[in-house]
Amino acid sequence: MVNQYVLKYGRVRSCIRELFEYGKQQAAIVGPENVYDFSIGNPSTPPPEELKQAFIDVIETESPLMVHGYTSAVGSNDARDAIAKALSDRMGRTFTRRNFYITCGAAAALISSIKAFAVDKESEAICFAPFFPEYSCFIDSAGMKQVIVPPDMDKFQINFPELEKALSPNTRCVIINSPNNPSGAILTRETLEKLAKLLTEKSAEYGHTIYIISDEPYRELVYGDIEVPYVPDIYPNTIICYSYSKSLSIPGDRLGYMMVPDCMENFDDVCDATSGAARVCGYVCAPAVVQRVIARCAHLMPDLTAYTTNRALLYNALTEMGYECVHPDGAFYLFFKAPNGDGNAFSEMAKKYNLLIVPGEGFGCKEYLRASYCVDTEMIKRSLPAFKALMDEVKNA
Amino acid sequence: MVNQYVLKYGRVRSCIRELFEYGKQQAAIVGPENVYDFSIGNPSTPPPEELKQAFIDVIETESPLMVHGYTSAVGSNDARDAIAKALSDRMGRTFTRRNFYITCGAAAALISSIKAFAVDKESEAICFAPFFPEYSCFIDSAGMKQVIVPPDMDKFQINFPELEKALSPNTRCVIINSPNNPSGAILTRETLEKLAKLLTEKSAEYGHTIYIISDEPYRELVYGDIEVPYVPDIYPNTIICYSYSKSLSIPGDRLGYMMVPDCMENFDDVCDATSGAARVCGYVCAPAVVQRVIARCAHLMPDLTAYTTNRALLYNALTEMGYECVHPDGAFYLFFKAPNGDGNAFSEMAKKYNLLIVPGEGFGCKEYLRASYCVDTEMIKRSLPAFKALMDEVKNA
Repeated sequence: MVNQYVLKYGRVRSCIRELFEYGKQQAAIVGPENVYDFSIGNPSTPPPEELKQAFIDVIETESPLMVHGYTSAVGSNDARDAIAKALSDRMGRTFTRRNFYITCGAAAALISSIKAFAVDKESEAICFAPFFPEYSCFIDSAGMKQVIVPPDMDKFQINFPELEKALSPNTRCVIINSPNNPSGAILTRETLEKLAKLLTEKSAEYGHTIYIISDEPYRELVYGDIEVPYVPDIYPNTIICYSYSKSLSIPGDRLGYMMVPDCMENFDDVCDATSGAARVCGYVCAPAVVQRVIARCAHLMPDLTAYTTNRALLYNALTEMGYECVHPDGAFYLFFKAPNGDGNAFSEMAKKYNLLIVPGEGFGCKEYLRASYCVDTEMIKRSLPAFKALMDEVKNA
Repeated sequence: MVNQYVLKYGRVRSCIRELFEYGKQQAAIVGPENVYDFSIGNPSTPPPEELKQAFIDVIETESPLMVHGYTSAVGSNDARDAIAKALSDRMGRTFTRRNFYITCGAAAALISSIKAFAVDKESEAICFAPFFPEYSCFIDSAGMKQVIVPPDMDKFQINFPELEKALSPNTRCVIINSPNNPSGAILTRETLEKLAKLLTEKSAEYGHTIYIISDEPYRELVYGDIEVPYVPDIYPNTIICYSYSKSLSIPGDRLGYMMVPDCMENFDDVCDATSGAARVCGYVCAPAVVQRVIARCAHLMPDLTAYTTNRALLYNALTEMGYECVHPDGAFYLFFKAPNGDGNAFSEMAKKYNLLIVPGEGFGCKEYLRASYCVDTEMIKRSLPAFKALMDEVKNA
């Protein structure tokens, strides 16, 4: 009676969303203070005060018909100009509005970019484990085959021998995500140069461009003086998908963009195909009021104080207990090995302590788990006995 | 190099959007006061003052982490409860949050509903001319075949003899839109009962449910005491797609819903399939801040003063000039016959006068045009000489 394909995606929820919903149900039963919810990447640092003020100013002083009216599908000129200027200033280069298509968050940017590169039924998209689980849903629904490159377990860079095996004449795009969700790893310039060299060779060999989709919602969430290279400098055929969800703590406001650099080989085709893909998904324009706010706030940078504290607290405590953790250079996730070697089983065990940590299977790393530390610092402190008890339970099993 | 299917949708823009963009370009050249833009359904009545105050209150007084945080994909409980209550009060029945999935506007609701009913490659969706042109894009991208029933030129109800020809064992859904964009016609109870009877018979004959998708963004935009029947009472297997774009004048805020009534035969399947369809399109949640506002404003009704004035002004003036107009009972569009019999050619002629009216071809009525009268009343007055000159031009040709 209904479409079985979409029914499946409605029934089998994202593992992150499922835990998040479970957490809300448990909070209603045992009290929110007794649930240690590390499931979702919902920022715990409030948006900057300037953003709050910008929202109020926009609503109070700008024309309501413009504030709440349709914008062009690509976004309002004001917002695109402000984004171009903020990035030009920050990165010392010259972007203009033509490089930016404003989207309903990074998810809309990703599905539109992926669809744009699905040229035929054999098309393949390469992902590097660990990767954001919804990539699988987007790639599948774009009619592409997801080809997963196993992780580089040493430094969570790129496993190049496995990448060489994964590449094929059907490869149309490669999705990278740095700083990475869930590992927090940042791809080095050296890694990206090696990737660019390989993709350039393979594009020539196959007779078609292999695009990079660079998913960068965590670009500004970096701890210490670590470079996050601007990928199009290294590989021109790169489209950047961005979201203000994490940097400005506004995931519910649904605002991000696709950035097609001037150096992109067939610039117009890529812009038109991504626009067309957004259109067939029913995107009319990104929320106009949020576009007005971003027109005033695109230059703001995140406040990393709380995440810096949380990162040290959780990483140090878990490492001391004997957990094997990836040291995160960016984002706000701690990726660690299940002490019993099985992320799914360990996540289930943790639920008994009302400790919600996402199993790594959906990220392409079955033996790992992800804990989002964009949470209240006090909750982390309260959760530590549960982490300890779990480790003891495994050791004594 | 890129997906040719989505490239087409990126290149060949919606005819409405194309005229709208053209109007903005012309305004920059000849001055906005000299462009008579009747292209887009962007409300000209500002949102209610209560909505403005609600926005400010939400931003100033509610927890910023909640205001700007993710909600469940289906929407926040507060907003769903408020919508259920407002509709229960208004319509004298009992809705609950389980009936509502909050979407990024009606477009997201429509693509999700249409996808949910695309069960195989032969699936067909029936539309009644005149219909909103983006239906064609959504049906096509859902992998369905659009079957168009020619208009009932007499009363713009349903052309039943043609509908009987259009129905087939592949029919999976029928899209209705009342009050109608572009004709302003409202389907009567009698029409809907006849439709329900036929679909019930055909569902039994074909051995599967034919669903109605009722697209109702203009439900509250009705002039005078005319009934807009609640369709699920007449045909239970109806999903309602709604948007606050027109009723509260917030098209840029992207907020609407899918409403699955309790009487729907396989309620859970329909809810799960539509959710899954939204997910594969990259919808994470509808804009959270707007959800907070709707939680306070779902009971508000539109102010029809300006549209009532505009409707009388434009209808009377054009009729007097000799244009053959459909008398609109709802929405804010005037649908009229091209005096030269060709909507496309007439729209092109009108451009010379900087008069922007949408040709009817995309709506399934080539000989008609649509003028959106959700515009400044003074602009209508200024535009009338152009309408007159056009009519004279045709008469003297």
